[in-house]
Amino acid sequence: MSRVVKLAVIPGDGIGPEVVAEAEKVLDAVTANSDVAFDKTRFSLGAARYLETGDTLTDEDLDAIKANDAIILGAVGGTPGDPALKDANIERGLLLRLRFTLDHYVNLRPSKLYPGAAGPLADPGEIDFVVVREGTEGPYVGNGGAIRVGTSNEVANETSVNTAYGVERVVRYAFELAERRRQQLTLVHKTNVLVHAGGMWQRIVNEVAGEHPGVAVDYLHVDAATIFMVSNPSRFDVIVTDNLFGDILTDLAGAVTGGIGLAASGNINPDGTFPSMFEPVHGSAPDIAGQQKADPTAAILSVALLLDHLGLREESARVTSAVEADIAERLGSRTTTEVGDAIIARLRA
Amino acid sequence: MSRVVKLAVIPGDGIGPEVVAEAEKVLDAVTANSDVAFDKTRFSLGAARYLETGDTLTDEDLDAIKANDAIILGAVGGTPGDPALKDANIERGLLLRLRFTLDHYVNLRPSKLYPGAAGPLADPGEIDFVVVREGTEGPYVGNGGAIRVGTSNEVANETSVNTAYGVERVVRYAFELAERRRQQLTLVHKTNVLVHAGGMWQRIVNEVAGEHPGVAVDYLHVDAATIFMVSNPSRFDVIVTDNLFGDILTDLAGAVTGGIGLAASGNINPDGTFPSMFEPVHGSAPDIAGQQKADPTAAILSVALLLDHLGLREESARVTSAVEADIAERLGSRTTTEVGDAIIARLRA
Ligand SMILES: CC(C)[C@H](C(=O)O)[C@@H](O)C(=O)O
Ligand SMILES: CC(C)[C@H](C(=O)O)[C@@H](O)C(=O)O
Repeated sequence: MSRVVKLAVIPGDGIGPEVVAEAEKVLDAVTANSDVAFDKTRFSLGAARYLETGDTLTDEDLDAIKANDAIILGAVGGTPGDPALKDANIERGLLLRLRFTLDHYVNLRPSKLYPGAAGPLADPGEIDFVVVREGTEGPYVGNGGAIRVGTSNEVANETSVNTAYGVERVVRYAFELAERRRQQLTLVHKTNVLVHAGGMWQRIVNEVAGEHPGVAVDYLHVDAATIFMVSNPSRFDVIVTDNLFGDILTDLAGAVTGGIGLAASGNINPDGTFPSMFEPVHGSAPDIAGQQKADPTAAILSVALLLDHLGLREESARVTSAVEADIAERLGSRTTTEVGDAIIARLRA
Repeated sequence: MSRVVKLAVIPGDGIGPEVVAEAEKVLDAVTANSDVAFDKTRFSLGAARYLETGDTLTDEDLDAIKANDAIILGAVGGTPGDPALKDANIERGLLLRLRFTLDHYVNLRPSKLYPGAAGPLADPGEIDFVVVREGTEGPYVGNGGAIRVGTSNEVANETSVNTAYGVERVVRYAFELAERRRQQLTLVHKTNVLVHAGGMWQRIVNEVAGEHPGVAVDYLHVDAATIFMVSNPSRFDVIVTDNLFGDILTDLAGAVTGGIGLAASGNINPDGTFPSMFEPVHGSAPDIAGQQKADPTAAILSVALLLDHLGLREESARVTSAVEADIAERLGSRTTTEVGDAIIARLRA
């Protein structure tokens, strides 16, 4: 009696295909003797596809992707400054369109300093926290506009839209996660300046906190949060924050825990209405693409998040352990494939 | 023939009065034998005043402040969570009102790792950059609002307003500063998401760059900028960015260069229409107020920025050198007054 998981694979641009190849190998290896089979469909999306066809993400693409149970994405985006991409916004048109259309309201970004990983901090202490970044609202909604564009009288506005509906669901998710972890939740916002949005976030956190008396709750302004991220990252367990602050904090968190070559993420629709999407936090890095220089670890840890999301907790833990063991013994430089193979060898051992 | 500078002094709340007292002593000492005299007017503003009178900043206060040539501010803000301050927003009503009304469009925040300062990075390299943060636009304008407040159908919006007028003037300032420094300017924004505001910032930087062929210009998304801030801060010379991104980056920069106890700032109106205001980046820290525990260095370095702004470059350099010498030999803990006195002793030596 086997379970079939329909998996959309979007390798994307730059180093995306290289790291996704390793992630797929790991997924195959860890589920080889299980009763789960992956029925994969590959999607050719990203800057390369745009340059060929002019399409970023068509409605047909979207429908085909929606027919899956989950998605793995490598990275998307062409060479910065490429004039042929001037009118394209692959990030908005593809990545953000997927997150918004598939209602990925939880952008889950764990940060852990694995023994052996070399971060920039002299005395990092233990780092093990998760950022629950809201994924479908805030300054990311695209509700901006400009007048008199290109003139010295231009006015360009960007509106951050925040709803109680959207904030409450992600706050609830964060509290539930905190219950299963170290029972500590930090709201990060900028309530002293963004009084309306910040006030609503604070109110909703206070309300939901009442249902979780065991969870200790605190608040940090986003500027202060960056200070703690480098001076005392051990203080964090679960951080809940808006789309933009989460974007900023998780890149910083990735750097602090050894580089975004290790940072995985899940774009999750907890309701299960749409497939969730798992991707490394890093970009497509076209400058090193095709050279086997990219570290596939972030993509492989994204597979661990995918497995966990599918309820395959043992398989997920095995991938994480194999990665952890690999990081602990990293020596010299290896190719993308060598890193993938080393992790698979540990999985099989 | 002596020059009289009218100086508004706003000690503020918490540790503000303690650090401002040392800053004033340093200002007096360094100008003692010069032909500049300071005609000071003290303003009692902040949470304490609000709790007493219900006023945050009256029109009369504003008029009286405007009659000065420059302003020194300590820190404002009461005890977080104080129920009596629930309806006050000292930050918006006082600090931001001053910055906006006095058209402080350049928020100047230098970051330098002084020898002897202990930052969190294992291998910081040389750090010496300046963030030119826009001070009168962006998400700080207060153009937000909410409907159905307090209900599960609340919608809370915040609008970031950006004008070519406002962006161009701060970008010009940043280029001129870069010309006098290491001729390198980095624009930080989030152009791939905030396409209207980001696009205008990028366009204006490109345009002004044409007038400064000697300045090398690059661009970083704000999330990537935080990575470089901890992995390679030496890459920065002048950063120009919007109000919110500048807020976030300068707290992080302060942490990286030894803590915000050392970070100074100038809120500058380069046109001279209104008095510029000099303040430490840190807050009022009510938890350690009145205990002589606060480091006055950031306030004293803000005096150096004030002196520089007044064209008193030699005096400014003397203050900076005295601080630098003090930091190089810091041992054990000293009271706020002891730090101020030690710096004054070096000034006089
Ligand atoms: C590529 C970009 C649109 C994206 C974001 O800002 O969310 C990226 O930085 C990320 O964090 O996944
Ligand atoms: C107190 C607050 C409003 C202020 C800001 O956000 O600008 C502070 O963080 C700063 O950086 O000066």
